[in-house]
Amino acid sequence: MITRRGLFAGGVATAAGAAAAATGSAAGAVVTHNARQAARVEPFHGAHQAGVATEPQAHAVFLGFDLRKDVRKEAVVRLLHLLTDDAARLTQGRPALADTEPELAVDAARLTVTFGFGPGLFAAAGVDSPVEPLPAFATDRLEKRWSGGDLLVQVCADDTVTVAHAVRMIVKDARSFARVRWTQRGFRSANRRNLMGQIEGTVNATDLDRAVWIGQGPLRGGTTLVLRRIRMLLETWDAADRVAREFTIGRRLGSGAPLTGTAERDEPDYARKNHLGFPVISEYAHIRRAHVADPALRLLRRPYNYDEGLTPEGESDSGLLFASYQADIARQFVPVQRMLAEGDLLNEWVTTIGSAVFAIPPGCAPGGWIGESLLA
Amino acid sequence: MITRRGLFAGGVATAAGAAAAATGSAAGAVVTHNARQAARVEPFHGAHQAGVATEPQAHAVFLGFDLRKDVRKEAVVRLLHLLTDDAARLTQGRPALADTEPELAVDAARLTVTFGFGPGLFAAAGVDSPVEPLPAFATDRLEKRWSGGDLLVQVCADDTVTVAHAVRMIVKDARSFARVRWTQRGFRSANRRNLMGQIEGTVNATDLDRAVWIGQGPLRGGTTLVLRRIRMLLETWDAADRVAREFTIGRRLGSGAPLTGTAERDEPDYARKNHLGFPVISEYAHIRRAHVADPALRLLRRPYNYDEGLTPEGESDSGLLFASYQADIARQFVPVQRMLAEGDLLNEWVTTIGSAVFAIPPGCAPGGWIGESLLA
Repeated sequence: MITRRGLFAGGVATAAGAAAAATGSAAGAVVTHNARQAARVEPFHGAHQAGVATEPQAHAVFLGFDLRKDVRKEAVVRLLHLLTDDAARLTQGRPALADTEPELAVDAARLTVTFGFGPGLFAAAGVDSPVEPLPAFATDRLEKRWSGGDLLVQVCADDTVTVAHAVRMIVKDARSFARVRWTQRGFRSANRRNLMGQIEGTVNATDLDRAVWIGQGPLRGGTTLVLRRIRMLLETWDAADRVAREFTIGRRLGSGAPLTGTAERDEPDYARKNHLGFPVISEYAHIRRAHVADPALRLLRRPYNYDEGLTPEGESDSGLLFASYQADIARQFVPVQRMLAEGDLLNEWVTTIGSAVFAIPPGCAPGGWIGESLLA
Repeated sequence: MITRRGLFAGGVATAAGAAAAATGSAAGAVVTHNARQAARVEPFHGAHQAGVATEPQAHAVFLGFDLRKDVRKEAVVRLLHLLTDDAARLTQGRPALADTEPELAVDAARLTVTFGFGPGLFAAAGVDSPVEPLPAFATDRLEKRWSGGDLLVQVCADDTVTVAHAVRMIVKDARSFARVRWTQRGFRSANRRNLMGQIEGTVNATDLDRAVWIGQGPLRGGTTLVLRRIRMLLETWDAADRVAREFTIGRRLGSGAPLTGTAERDEPDYARKNHLGFPVISEYAHIRRAHVADPALRLLRRPYNYDEGLTPEGESDSGLLFASYQADIARQFVPVQRMLAEGDLLNEWVTTIGSAVFAIPPGCAPGGWIGESLLA
């Protein structure tokens, strides 16, 4: 074998001219490609951050960071300036500053980069936190490696390489301020089904100005995120028959219709009883426990499936990254979660193993940075 | 909290009638959906297995199985009957027999399921193996957890949930015969770029009848697969500048054109020298080392990116699942790999950490099973 570093140093000069000559044509190719991809760009700047109300992309990576010990407000602000700049560029199909793989930035593929602040970030910055950890739920089996975190960066796009590239740029620029606490990768199918076969997101918040966006205070235009890692016990779910599953959910698996209806979007009739006098949709069916009558209190759920293959014991390590956005965690998320924890039949087959809460700051204008209303 | 199993038993009977009544409409929905998805179905039966010459799908899972100790020829044949049946159904958008999530089978999303036999499968069946492990290469740093395996199942589709579902059905049906040795998940971008930013697959075998499909013997209509897990050292790659990278590869990063050309598909001019008398494409550039002049000896490469996030040390754990199909491993793959191992500049930034070889049996006719020409 030859020594490559030596060879390499000798050859670089010969290639330099040719590379320079090619710059023009490569840039041309990029422009053409950009024009073709214009429809695939999500706006970055605005009153709200993208990635919340955005039609969910096919792939997501949720990154949870812990700030380094010596990081205080000034450093947090510097970090957010940096990451906002990365996000503003990458989401528009432009390379980050000093992007090491600029070609991978060309296809934005509806990339969104969304930032969230955990209680620890506010503590480091010396600012009162508008969010606090959830209360304990009896059904939780939380693992530290999937829980908590000072800073969330949610990266979503329709292209896997676009996501991988954006994640890499973000992690690189965050490195001197923070270390990655967890990485959670998710995916969605066009048919919206999760790995249990259910259709996700039939009932979702639609009145976003009341249910999701915060109307006043420093978080005005922002929201909150609860991210739960919900393991699905697919092996035992498979042992339950179809009737049992539909009874558990309160919906038919095929159509997604409530047991009292025929189409997915039919309003469930929670009062209807069968000829024996029992409710058609059980008191403990998942959809009844999760039901929120007031549209202003509904959650905006934007879940992704996760699948990490098999555990060493040969069981599937998969489930749902349940991302829920709401204006007020205590008024909206906690009551629903309590109902589920107290009596959802589905608990037999799902276990929450990770949990984190974040304030999602409002969006920013060109030249601004995410978090300025909270930290400036 | 209430006990759910008790509740559950009481409620099932009341739901049974309603579920039965709904079966008709659910089946109707499936049919409509199937018609819409007809263009997204890859044929299963035929002279060759699908998943080799098939236009690469966006997502792949490579499953390596070890047969259980007591498994002999009869059990191998039974296993292959079972898995062939699963693959024949799932690839056509139909549930597997006793499919536990039939809704997840509806969108085939160009699903292909491809089977490969490692030396251990032939040994278990008492049949001479047509494939043997690769010779050692000095640059290899093979890890057992990514290497070897008696049976390969390669699952590819354009939808992540379709892949996850097919993998689950296959693993479940294989469970009593084999255990999963490794699971390797990969993805491809529409722009064909890998995580280093290079365009993959510019030069690929096109004369498949000579370069890929085996023309005689029990493997007639089949081929071989070499699957290499190639870790990319992205942190140090990022430290190399653009000129150094293009010199290493022998191509421009922007256009993918050889350093002697202007467009991706331009034929590299390996003889051309610069004004100092050095070859424009270095003797040790990746494309020169990998170059195969005879089209009948070219490899059919079908690589996928992998990205497992960050190692505990904070380095990216990502790279390429290099899947190479060829009629003859010794005549086609080994010489190229030897050239690369002996002097590819790219070795500075890539390390092969997994390696496995498989015979890919020919396809089968309806009613047949994969492997019949080898094991019947």
